[in-house]
Parts: sequence; structure tokens; C-alpha cells
Amino acid sequence: MKSFSTVLSRLLVILFISFLGCKNETSKDTTTKEAAQVLKDFTQYVNPFIGTSNFGTTNPGPIAVRGMANVSPFNVAGPKNLPLEKDSRWLSTPYINENPFLTGFSHVNLSGVGCPELGVILAMPTTGSLETNHLKYGSTYSEENATVGYYTNKIDKYNVKVEASATTRVGVSKYHFPAGDANILLNLGLGLTNEEGAMVKVVSSTEIEGMRSVGSFCYYKPEEAYPVYFVARFSKPADKFGIWKKPRTYTGVEADWMTYNAETRIKENYTKEVIGDSIGAFMRYKFDKPSTVEMKIGVSYVSIENARENLEKETADKSFDEILTDTKKEWNTHLSRIEVEGGTANDKTIFYTALYHTLIHPSTLNDFNGEYPKMKTRETLKTDGTRYTVFSLWDTYRNLHQLMSLVYPEQQSNMVKSMLQIYDESGWLPKWELNATETTTMVGDPAGIIITDTYLKGIRDFDVEKAYEAMKKSATQLENNPLRPGIKDYIEKGYLTTTTVHSGSVSTTQEYNVSDFAIAQLAKVLDKKDDYKTFSERAISYRKLFNKEFNLLRPKNDDGSWVTPYNPEAGANFEKNLGFIEGNAWQYTFMVAHDTKGLKELMGGDTPFVNRLEDVFDKNQFDMANEPDINYPFLFNHIKGQEYKTGQKVSELLKKYFKNTPDGLPGNDDTGTMSAWAVFSMMGIYPVTPAEPKYAITTPVFDKITIRLNNKYYKNSQLVIKGGGNKKGKIKGVKLGNTNIKGFFINHSDLVKIGTLTVSNKQD
Amino acid sequence: MKSFSTVLSRLLVILFISFLGCKNETSKDTTTKEAAQVLKDFTQYVNPFIGTSNFGTTNPGPIAVRGMANVSPFNVAGPKNLPLEKDSRWLSTPYINENPFLTGFSHVNLSGVGCPELGVILAMPTTGSLETNHLKYGSTYSEENATVGYYTNKIDKYNVKVEASATTRVGVSKYHFPAGDANILLNLGLGLTNEEGAMVKVVSSTEIEGMRSVGSFCYYKPEEAYPVYFVARFSKPADKFGIWKKPRTYTGVEADWMTYNAETRIKENYTKEVIGDSIGAFMRYKFDKPSTVEMKIGVSYVSIENARENLEKETADKSFDEILTDTKKEWNTHLSRIEVEGGTANDKTIFYTALYHTLIHPSTLNDFNGEYPKMKTRETLKTDGTRYTVFSLWDTYRNLHQLMSLVYPEQQSNMVKSMLQIYDESGWLPKWELNATETTTMVGDPAGIIITDTYLKGIRDFDVEKAYEAMKKSATQLENNPLRPGIKDYIEKGYLTTTTVHSGSVSTTQEYNVSDFAIAQLAKVLDKKDDYKTFSERAISYRKLFNKEFNLLRPKNDDGSWVTPYNPEAGANFEKNLGFIEGNAWQYTFMVAHDTKGLKELMGGDTPFVNRLEDVFDKNQFDMANEPDINYPFLFNHIKGQEYKTGQKVSELLKKYFKNTPDGLPGNDDTGTMSAWAVFSMMGIYPVTPAEPKYAITTPVFDKITIRLNNKYYKNSQLVIKGGGNKKGKIKGVKLGNTNIKGFFINHSDLVKIGTLTVSNKQD
Repeated sequence: MKSFSTVLSRLLVILFISFLGCKNETSKDTTTKEAAQVLKDFTQYVNPFIGTSNFGTTNPGPIAVRGMANVSPFNVAGPKNLPLEKDSRWLSTPYINENPFLTGFSHVNLSGVGCPELGVILAMPTTGSLETNHLKYGSTYSEENATVGYYTNKIDKYNVKVEASATTRVGVSKYHFPAGDANILLNLGLGLTNEEGAMVKVVSSTEIEGMRSVGSFCYYKPEEAYPVYFVARFSKPADKFGIWKKPRTYTGVEADWMTYNAETRIKENYTKEVIGDSIGAFMRYKFDKPSTVEMKIGVSYVSIENARENLEKETADKSFDEILTDTKKEWNTHLSRIEVEGGTANDKTIFYTALYHTLIHPSTLNDFNGEYPKMKTRETLKTDGTRYTVFSLWDTYRNLHQLMSLVYPEQQSNMVKSMLQIYDESGWLPKWELNATETTTMVGDPAGIIITDTYLKGIRDFDVEKAYEAMKKSATQLENNPLRPGIKDYIEKGYLTTTTVHSGSVSTTQEYNVSDFAIAQLAKVLDKKDDYKTFSERAISYRKLFNKEFNLLRPKNDDGSWVTPYNPEAGANFEKNLGFIEGNAWQYTFMVAHDTKGLKELMGGDTPFVNRLEDVFDKNQFDMANEPDINYPFLFNHIKGQEYKTGQKVSELLKKYFKNTPDGLPGNDDTGTMSAWAVFSMMGIYPVTPAEPKYAITTPVFDKITIRLNNKYYKNSQLVIKGGGNKKGKIKGVKLGNTNIKGFFINHSDLVKIGTLTVSNKQD
Repeated sequence: MKSFSTVLSRLLVILFISFLGCKNETSKDTTTKEAAQVLKDFTQYVNPFIGTSNFGTTNPGPIAVRGMANVSPFNVAGPKNLPLEKDSRWLSTPYINENPFLTGFSHVNLSGVGCPELGVILAMPTTGSLETNHLKYGSTYSEENATVGYYTNKIDKYNVKVEASATTRVGVSKYHFPAGDANILLNLGLGLTNEEGAMVKVVSSTEIEGMRSVGSFCYYKPEEAYPVYFVARFSKPADKFGIWKKPRTYTGVEADWMTYNAETRIKENYTKEVIGDSIGAFMRYKFDKPSTVEMKIGVSYVSIENARENLEKETADKSFDEILTDTKKEWNTHLSRIEVEGGTANDKTIFYTALYHTLIHPSTLNDFNGEYPKMKTRETLKTDGTRYTVFSLWDTYRNLHQLMSLVYPEQQSNMVKSMLQIYDESGWLPKWELNATETTTMVGDPAGIIITDTYLKGIRDFDVEKAYEAMKKSATQLENNPLRPGIKDYIEKGYLTTTTVHSGSVSTTQEYNVSDFAIAQLAKVLDKKDDYKTFSERAISYRKLFNKEFNLLRPKNDDGSWVTPYNPEAGANFEKNLGFIEGNAWQYTFMVAHDTKGLKELMGGDTPFVNRLEDVFDKNQFDMANEPDINYPFLFNHIKGQEYKTGQKVSELLKKYFKNTPDGLPGNDDTGTMSAWAVFSMMGIYPVTPAEPKYAITTPVFDKITIRLNNKYYKNSQLVIKGGGNKKGKIKGVKLGNTNIKGFFINHSDLVKIGTLTVSNKQD
């Protein structure tokens, strides 16, 4: 019987892992589908329009879990969308809720970022004669609606109903045309990116292939521009097909001979590659009666062949409706990892939409066959798991990866492995990696913080020695160190000076401190005693920048003197500030969660600390939309008797900034960081100190939260948090299992081991 | 014994066919090579610099017989080449002998054309640090030399010796670098064409692949632009490689954020596709000592895969020297079809260089595997023989194809078959076909003239019924007829009017007359009696435009009245002229060789005819560089007692316009038409009437000319023309074999049947 039971138990483990969807998303199997069928429908609580205004920069278009493809309505081109028009200002989203003028649907997009990029491979259905100028073929739209994995609208000018869905690497659209002439345009000129250049080729009356150059994220590193490939398939053969090209405008004597100078050219029935900055392809139909055409666009960052294989493997034998059903199921499987009870309908929508936003980025880079481009050179490599991309780590090291470690540890494991692949390929861990390019956006050396945090939470199925080596490399290499500019000063003086860097000498010092703290923590568990000591010391060097005059951090000059005169308020709202990047002294001083005790002492003890912390809010210096201060509300938990302020602040912030409306995010979602803040906050726990496996506790929004744990990483199959509902009073007590705990922090290992956390409010 | 002798004779036929090189050039075999080895070296008489000045628009770069690839030095870019600089004027050649500033070597080029096109895929060796701006990396050059299939120079700035050769579809270069840093640049932005857009991808440290958009020949039909593909291989792995891209210049608010706006980007070790109007790839080397790198660039109009296969099949296992030897041998095999004896060294060079120029275009379109792009849509098709391209038929119908029919009938057969393929694919015979696009340049309907001429010369291994159908189609379809605009008027009135066409109403009428004459001649041998009658009548309708007042042709208005006032001189030198395109009444009136008798009668008999013909020369109206009048000198043969003037004029024209110097062509070579004129004229025979298989006779330049006939088409294995050397006196008598013939014309069939023509001068 032993062998039978072993087999049985293994089988159960496998089934449960499948149920959790922790296998690579591309290898779905019947078990997963069947399991998903019995789940409640959590997708009903997602409102994809949240974050589509107020610069949330999310889009309502369908996407699969961590999908590479995403069919977003594109309404940021053309004067009719002013003032939120892409060429007239810095705009980083393909869709803005209040914009009226639609010029198509882009098939690769970023969600919740602050820089314009991607937003390319635009498809647009039109009717009547062929028009290839988006300013002319664009239209208002109505009857807009979106649910998880589904978007629909009506394009007013043509009376065409559009429906869209997506698999991991394929955008799928269904166009409902009236009778008459119909066109499907594939515009490869228009895009959100500031890169240009595309290739397109009509393969047959049902297929178009091509590529589009993208890159220069944040108007930076243009030399790392790279291609995205696609194959588009149409359910009905076109009656006519072709391409268009608008060439550049010639000047001088040659222009005199060119009667066609700068005129758009149409090439009907042409089947070779066409190249240019402003090109596109079209399919034309003549319908006797109202008809639908389904279009599938497979994408890849490796090759056209892979884009075609992605399309075929993920969608070849499936109708639009089947794809939509499967994608919704996949989402539900993921969203169901957390079940909340209690709270209002809006609370649920805010919560699940936030959770949905945390499952978009990091997203999938590798193709169905496992191939993905190597960093920088873009040679083709192959991965066994998922190679994730869009690592906006300065944002996400603070909470998103902590959420993944708790709820989707199999994904977090793969994300760490992806970071190590990036290290293998480029020699450095990522900072802001995007589709196998290192954009080097923002500051600090955040990857190691995430690695330590993940490892300390018990997710250890990666090469930790390599990870440690990579972390130490960026912490110690003095020359040509792309992750830690100014490292020499940092090591010698303990801080960067206003001479070392042109901006953010204090904040960068703090970031390095947090990274060094992470190295120390990992060194400790790896029994590297010397390193532990060294990096623990380095981790608190920010103290040298603490200025008693202001009771805040303050930048220092190269000679060790304070920067004078000094206005701690300067630096908010992207003002240039010598000491701080994207923030000021108020927004950064407390960003030393690993040394809150030390900071308290510097400030003169508990009371001055709490007063100063309270000042941040009172002086309106708290910025919910910016990462450095987002853990501030939870710092009140450190001060006995002041813990209630955590619940107070969090509750206020949730109410003020997180809403079931398009402007329901405080600003850029920062690839899910804002949303992760909401998810944790609403669950009543927050990972206040990156690289330290503990949570600050506050009042959950819901009565009961059940997190289904992945048994590959956690012994318990669930974690239940019981809360005080929406009541905002002081916490009366916190129980772990049946035991009252002291204070308002809880270790990750205790939490998942015991499996029940009860937060009781005084009013209960 | 019978069976043995049959086998033997078959073997001999096969051997001889091989010897003649009449098999597809791509399927060379040992027999051909060995046969070639025993031949005299005729390549020594070719001077590839003839035609590289005075707008001859040939280039001295290596090319195989009817090659697709051609490595031409490119010295027409940049102000340093003014006034003959490509962007400052209408310039149609990649190389001009007197220009000093070289910016690379282009790998696909046109020879002897009047419109800028191709001249792309530019390679350039440089030394020192990487510079990608051609205005900066360009250099003067020296030590220039060229022979058949070979070109060399020294690039002064870098002290790099360049050698180049070519196979049919592969350009081969050998760069001799000094010690130090060396670069090989592949510039895909720069080009003679006015099209833009390219893709490039570094495949490995020894291979680059890509494509370049070309088209809009004569600044026309931009919608028919198309790609040329390439694969470049390098004999030594590069130490570094990469690409560059110069993006367009942004303006407006976005430009403020782009610190890199319009700056050239370098991407080292990058291995994905890069797309743009101004891009290139580079290989970099660090040489300890002087070193050579051989570079092979395979081209294709079908695909990158085919370009690679072309490269591999034609050159993979061969060194530069082996390729050069083989290419020279192939040329010698072809040039040796005609052996001249007597004449000066310059005469021989002028003759063989002219013959060489007739063997460049039409050139090969199909790849090694037989694939070629279909007209317009560019789907991939496959041919058994050679699919020829570059059919500048308004030029070449007058003499080049007649030369091919006589000397290279297997090629001429294939050219007719190519024309029929074009008909199959596009529905129309070619007019000015270029790489599977119909440029519709110039006027008339010339393909049928060539088809009839070929058929009547006994070259009949093509589908003549299809050809006849195609010819009749363009002669009879009244609407949407791309070959014969104005056909309605032409059929109704017998001529086009100044209302029918905006230019060239008379000359176009004449062209249609010649075409209709050709249809009539073919109808006659195909026993289509009604058609023969109809088209014979149509063929002389130009007579309605004969104006007694001027004794010249004159355009008519729509109401049948003469255009008044009328200046017959107007229209030379590309002036706009209502009646004539590229010419005037003098240069066109006699262009009715098929009805010289009729013209004589219109003019009032022999004497007025001769006087008017003499007037053309006396009034300086004869234009050697323009096709309509190039058979005028031979028309004197029609008038008894005046025949000597043919020899006189031809001799004068040869001396004046055809020289062993860069300006040794009268103007554009017109894809070999000027050269074919020289070849025939120097041999003492000229195909004075297109579509009539006869030659006008004049004094040959050489004592003896031996044409080795192809036994597949001709019973005799040779045709010998014996002449009066360079003496310019009147012809005393003409003998065909041993028989004196009357008059100064000889039928093609008699000539090739008897095999000996002796032209004796009075002074002999």
C-alpha cells in the first residue's frame, strides 16, 4: 500500500499545482480547465477601466495573465484628443478614458508606466473606400465595455462593432461589419513609441506578417531599439489586399521630378516585404450582408516564425468565443488565489482589479517554444520556465514581488530566475529591464532586494550562490558599474555627494543602503559572516546624511559640508533636486525601513519620530503616487500607542486614491506597484521592510480573506486573514491562530505556518 | 557502325553546344571550362572604362555575363563630386570616370540607362575608428584598373587596395588592409535609386543579411517599388560587428526630450533586424599585420534565403582568384563567338567592349534555383531557363536582339520566352520591364517587333501562337491598353493627334506602324491571311502624317488639320514637341524602314529622298545617341549609286562617337543599343528594318570576322565576313559565297546558309 499512497499523494500534489495554475501558462491542461470550472467567478469584480484616467496609464484592453499581447484601444493620436495627445506632451499610455478619437487597436502595450513605449501594431476596421491616414480614418466610439480578457466598442463612423480578447501571445479581434465595402487596416507607422521603422508583407489573402521597431523607453538608450514581430491571420480571405507606404518628403531638385513626392502609395495584391517609417497593410472585403471577420495577431520578440507558431499553438483551432472563455478561465484561476468576503461591491472591484493589475507585469517575454532574445545582442536563447520581462524594479521591489512571493510563489521563483538569466546574459542584474533591454531608468540596485526577500520567504528553487555573486558584483565593482554610479564615494564616504551625481545624492545613498541591507540579510542565512558584518555596516551609512537642524536627511557636498541653503520641500512634482530623485527630503527620509530604530534615535526618540512622520502628512508632503514614501503609513506601527494611525492613514488613502472609476489609481500604476499597495493594504498586511520577511498589520477592509497557498512552497494550503470589515477603529488585538501576538508586525514564516490571522477592532 | 556514328555525332553536338555556352550560365560544366581554356583570350580587348563618361552610364565594375550582381565603384554622392553629383541633377549611373570621391561599391546596378535606379548595397572598406557618414568616410582613389570581370583601385585615405569580381548573382571583393583597425561598412541608406527603406541583420561574425527597397525608375510608378535581398559573407570572422541607424529628425515637443534626436546610433554585437531609411552594418577587425578580407555578397529579387543559396551555389567553395578565373573564362567563351582579324588594336577594343556591353542587359532575374518574382505582385515563380529582365525594348528592338539572334540565339530564345512569361503574369508583353516591374517608360509596343524578328530568323522554340495572341491583344484592345495609349484614334484615323497624347503623336504613330508591320509579317508566316492584310494596311498609316510642304512628317490636330505653325527642328535635346518624343521630324521621318519605298514615293522619288536624308546630316539633325535615327546611315543603300554614302556615314560616325576612351560612347548606351550599333556596323552588316530578316551591307572595319554559329539554330557552324579593312572607299562588289550579289542588302537566311560574305572595296 505504501507505493500506492506515495503515487496517490504525488498525484494530488500535481493536481493541486495544476489547479493553482502554477505551471507555465502556456502549458494549460484539461485538469486546470476543469478545476477552473468549479471556481466562483472572480473576474466579475475586475473593472479594466480603473487606472485609465488620472495618468494611471493602464488600459482596458484584453490581456492574458502576464501576457505579451494586449489589444488596447488606441485613442491618443490626433488633435481631436488634445490636450491628452501623444505628440504634444509626454504621454505613456495607448488609451485615455476621456479621449474621444480612436485610431485603432495596438497589440503590444505597457501597463502603468511613466514613459511612452510600445503601443504598436495597430489594427483598425473601417468601411467604404480605402483611407490609410489615421487622422482621416479615425473615429469617435461608443458602446464601450470591458471585462477581464474582453473589450468591445462601436466605431461610430463605420457602425462597426469591435470585440477583442487575447491569449498570452495573441491578440484576437472580432469585427462586425455592415454590408458593403469593409477594410481591416494594419498600421505600422502609428504608435506610442518614439521609435520608427517597420516591415510588412502580405503572405496571402488570410495572412500578413511583419515587424516594428520599438525602444528608446523614456527617450533614452536609442541604441537599444529592437524589433517586435507579428503574424496576423484573418478568418475570411480578403477580396483584395495590399500595403501602403508614405515615403519621406524629398526636397531639392529631385523633388521637382517626383510628381509623387511624399504621396502615400498603395500596392494592391503585392506580396513582398515593404519597409518604411510610415507603412501598413490592408485587407479589403465586399460583404453582401452584415458579416464578421475574426483577426488573430500573434506577436514575438524573437522572429516572425515564432510569432506564427505562437498564433498557431495558442489559437489556431479556436474561435473568438473559445479563446475568450479560456482566457477568462485562466484569469479566474489566478484571481481565485485570494477570496475575499465582506466589504462592499466597490471594495471587491477595487481589490480584484488591483490584483489583476499586479498580474500584468512582469510579463512574458519568451515564445511558446521557450525562445527569447538575449539581452542587448538579441541572440535567440531558450528557457524552460517563463522568462519574464518589464522589471520596473525601483517600483516593484517595495511590494509587488512580496505579493507574488505570498500568493504566486511559482511566478516569483520564475521572476528571480529571469533576473538571473539577465545577469548571465548581460553581466548585471536588471534595474529596469524591458523586453531584453536594460533601460537603466531610475536609480538604485533593486534586484538583490527582491532576491533576498524571495529567498527569506522560503522560495529557494533558484541558484542562490549565483544570485549572491551578482548582488555582490554591483555592490563592489568600482569602475563601469551601471547599477551603482557613484559607488566609489558611497563606499569611501558612506554617501554620494552633490558632485558624485547630478541629482539624488541622498536618495541614491538610501537605495544603496537598502540593497546592502539585503545583501547582509542573505549573507547571514548563507553563513557569510564577514559579508554580513560589512554590508550591515554599509546599510546604515545614510545616517551620515541625517541633519539635526531639519531632523531630516540633507545632501552633502564633496567636502563633507551640508548643501546650503537647504529647502527640504523642494523636489516634489519632478522638480530638480540635488539630494533626491523624484521626491524631496520629506518623501525620502523615512525610506530606511530596515533601520527605523536607528532613524528614531537620530531624530531623538519615539515622539520626535512620530511627530516628523505625522508632519509628512500634515504638511501635505505625502505622495501616494510615488514609491519612496508609500510604506510611511505603516511606520506608525513601530511606535507604541500610535499604531492606530496606520489604520487611519491607510484607510484614508484607500478611500481617497483607490476608486472604482477610471481615475481610481493615484497616478501611474508603476507596473502594478500602486495596485499591490492596495491589495496588501486591503488585506491588512503590508511588507513594510523590503528584504525583511515580515508584514506590518493593519485593519483589513474585508471580513475574511482566504489566500490559497501553493503547496510547492507552503505547507498550509491556505492563509486566512479575518478582519474588522470596513470599520476604522483602533485595533483591539491581533491573533495568530489562537494566540494573541504582541505588536503590529508578523513574520512571514509564522503567518504562513499558522495560517490564520485575526485582526479585531475595538468597535467589534 | 551506324549507331556508333549517331552517338558520336550527338556527342559532338552536345560538346559544341556546351562550347558555345548556350546552356544556362548557371549550369557551367567541365566541358565548357575545358573548351574555354583552348580559346584565345578575347577579354584582353575589353576596356570596361568605355562609356563611363559623356553620360554613357556604363560602369567599370565586374559583372558576369548577363549578371544580376555587379560590383561598381560608387562615386556620385557628395558635393566633392559636383557637378556630376547624384542629388543635384538627374544622374543615372553609380560611377563617372572623372569623379574623384568614392563612397563605396554598389552591388546591383543598371548599365547604360537614362534614369537613376538601383546602385544599392554599398560596401566600403575603411580603417581606424568607425565612421558611418559617407560624406566623412568617403575618399579619393587611385591606381584604378579594370578588365573583364575585375576591378581594382586603392582607397587613398585608408591605403586599402580593393579588388572586385563577380559571378552571376554574387559580387566578390578582396580588401587589402594595412595593420591596425579595419572596418567593412555595408551602407544600406546610400544609393542611386530614389527609393528608400532597408532592413539589415548581422547573422554572425561572418555573415550579414538584409534587403533594400528600390524602384520608381525614371521617377515613375513609385507604387511598384520592390525589394532586393542580399547575404554578405566574410572570409574572416569580425572581431566586432554591429549596425548603425540614423533616425529621422523629430521636431516639436518630443524633440526636446530626445537628447539623441537625429543622431546616428551604433549597436554593437546586435543580431536582430534593423529597419530604416538610413541604416548599415559593419564588421570590425584588428590586424597585427597587413591582412586581406574577402567578401561575397549574394543578391536575389526573391528572398534572403535565395540570396544565400545563390552565394553558396556560385561561390561557397571558391577563392576570389578562382572566381575571377571562372568569370573571365565565361566571358571569353561568350566573346569568342565573334573573332575579328585585322583592324587596329583600338578597333578591336572598341568592338569587343561593345560586344561586352551587349551581354550585360537584358540580365538575369531568376535565382540559381530558378525562382523569380512574378510581375507586380512578386509572388515567387520558377523558370526552367533564364528569366531575363531589364528589357528596354524601345531601344533594343532596333538592333540588340537582332545581334543576339545571330550570335547568341539560345539567349535570344530565352529572352522571347521571358517576354512571354511577362505576358502570362501581367497580361501584357513588356515595354520597359525592370526586375519584374513594368516601368512603362518610352512609347510604342516593341516586344512584338522583336518576337517577329526572332521567329523569322528561324529561332522558333517558343510558343509562337501565344506570342501572336499577345501581340494582337495590344494591337486591338481599345480600352485600358497600357502599351498603346491612343489606340482608338490610331485605328480610326490612322494616327494619333495632338489631342490623343500630350507629346509624340507622330512618333508614336510610327512606332505602332512598325509594330503592326511586325504583326503582319508574323501573320504571313503563320498563314493568317486576313490579319496579314489588315496589319499591313495599318503599318503604313503614318503616310497620312506626311506633309508635302516640309517633305517631312508633321503632327495633325484632332480635326485632321496640320499643327500650325510648324518648326520641324523643335524637339531635339529633350525639348517638348507635340509630334515627337525625344526627337523631332528630322530624326523620325525616316523611321519607317519597313516602308522606305513608300516614303520615297511620298517624297517624290529617289533624288528628293536622298537629298532629304542627306539634309538630316547636313543640318546637324542626326543624333547618334538617340534611337529613332540610328538606322538612317544605312538607308542610302536603298538608292542606286548612293550606297557608298552608307559606308561614308557609318565610318564617320564610328570614328566620331565610338572610341577607346571613357567618353567612347555617344551618350547613354541604352542597355547595349549603342554598342550593338557599333558591333553590327563594324562587322559591315546592319539589321536596318526591325522585323525583317535582312541586313544592310557596308564596309566592315575588319579584314575578317568569324561568327561561331550555334548549331541548335543554324546549320553552318560559322559565318565569315571578309571586308575591306579600314579603307573607306566605295564598295566594289559583294559576294555571298562565291556568288556576286546585286544590291547592298542580304537576307539573314541566305547569309547564315552560305556562311561567307565578302565585301570588296574599290581600292582593294
